[in-house]
Amino acid sequence: MLKDIHHVALVVKSIDESLPFFEKALGLKGGEVVTMPEQGVKAVLLPMGQSEIELIEPIDENSGVGKFLANKGEGIHHICLEVDDVDRELVELGERGVQAIDKQGRKGLAGKVAFLHPKSTQGVLIELAQKQH
Amino acid sequence: MLKDIHHVALVVKSIDESLPFFEKALGLKGGEVVTMPEQGVKAVLLPMGQSEIELIEPIDENSGVGKFLANKGEGIHHICLEVDDVDRELVELGERGVQAIDKQGRKGLAGKVAFLHPKSTQGVLIELAQKQH
Repeated sequence: MLKDIHHVALVVKSIDESLPFFEKALGLKGGEVVTMPEQGVKAVLLPMGQSEIELIEPIDENSGVGKFLANKGEGIHHICLEVDDVDRELVELGERGVQAIDKQGRKGLAGKVAFLHPKSTQGVLIELAQKQH
Repeated sequence: MLKDIHHVALVVKSIDESLPFFEKALGLKGGEVVTMPEQGVKAVLLPMGQSEIELIEPIDENSGVGKFLANKGEGIHHICLEVDDVDRELVELGERGVQAIDKQGRKGLAGKVAFLHPKSTQGVLIELAQKQH
């Protein structure tokens, strides 16, 4: 069961250059900038109410995010939906024909996460996230 | 002040063809499909927790959404952020250099709304929405 929008992720060329807009113009406040070499990105979460805006900067131009930036430019990259149990959700969605990029949940910035395959989600990149306490 | 993510809007070629995916595969439930001729679109909101997913279908290929679909294909179109007072927010954002497409709030599917100009929001189309009671 999909519980809520956890965050919306935006690809930017440079977190250092973009963060002042989100902090000074929009009044949000970024947390720690985290580098995830295995994903080829740096990322930062900016909480807003019950949700968050995530900024993602590719550190490897051959990563998925790097290719997205090269092909489409800066903009909205994916939406992340909160679930109680990522692995159970992957099984249930699979039974309804939804394919996943991650066959099981893995550690991500937003908790235990998995990406669905946009080919089976109407072209929209959807991440599932399970909060970890 | 930006309070939360109100909804994320997805452009689809056909609401009729896409809605079954969101309802049967993802388990969401769409409300009434509303036609907004002045915007050149049909739209439907699918509540999820405190947020919503919006599906938008262009009914006029010369509308902004029609051009988006032609140029970029189906995918994420904009994010909508909840505010207490759209008009006050437009003034305050304007003072911080953020330009708007709508100079003041107007009636939209999500309440009283206004779109910011993506040229001044890092390429991301952002809608502001004030709930109307």
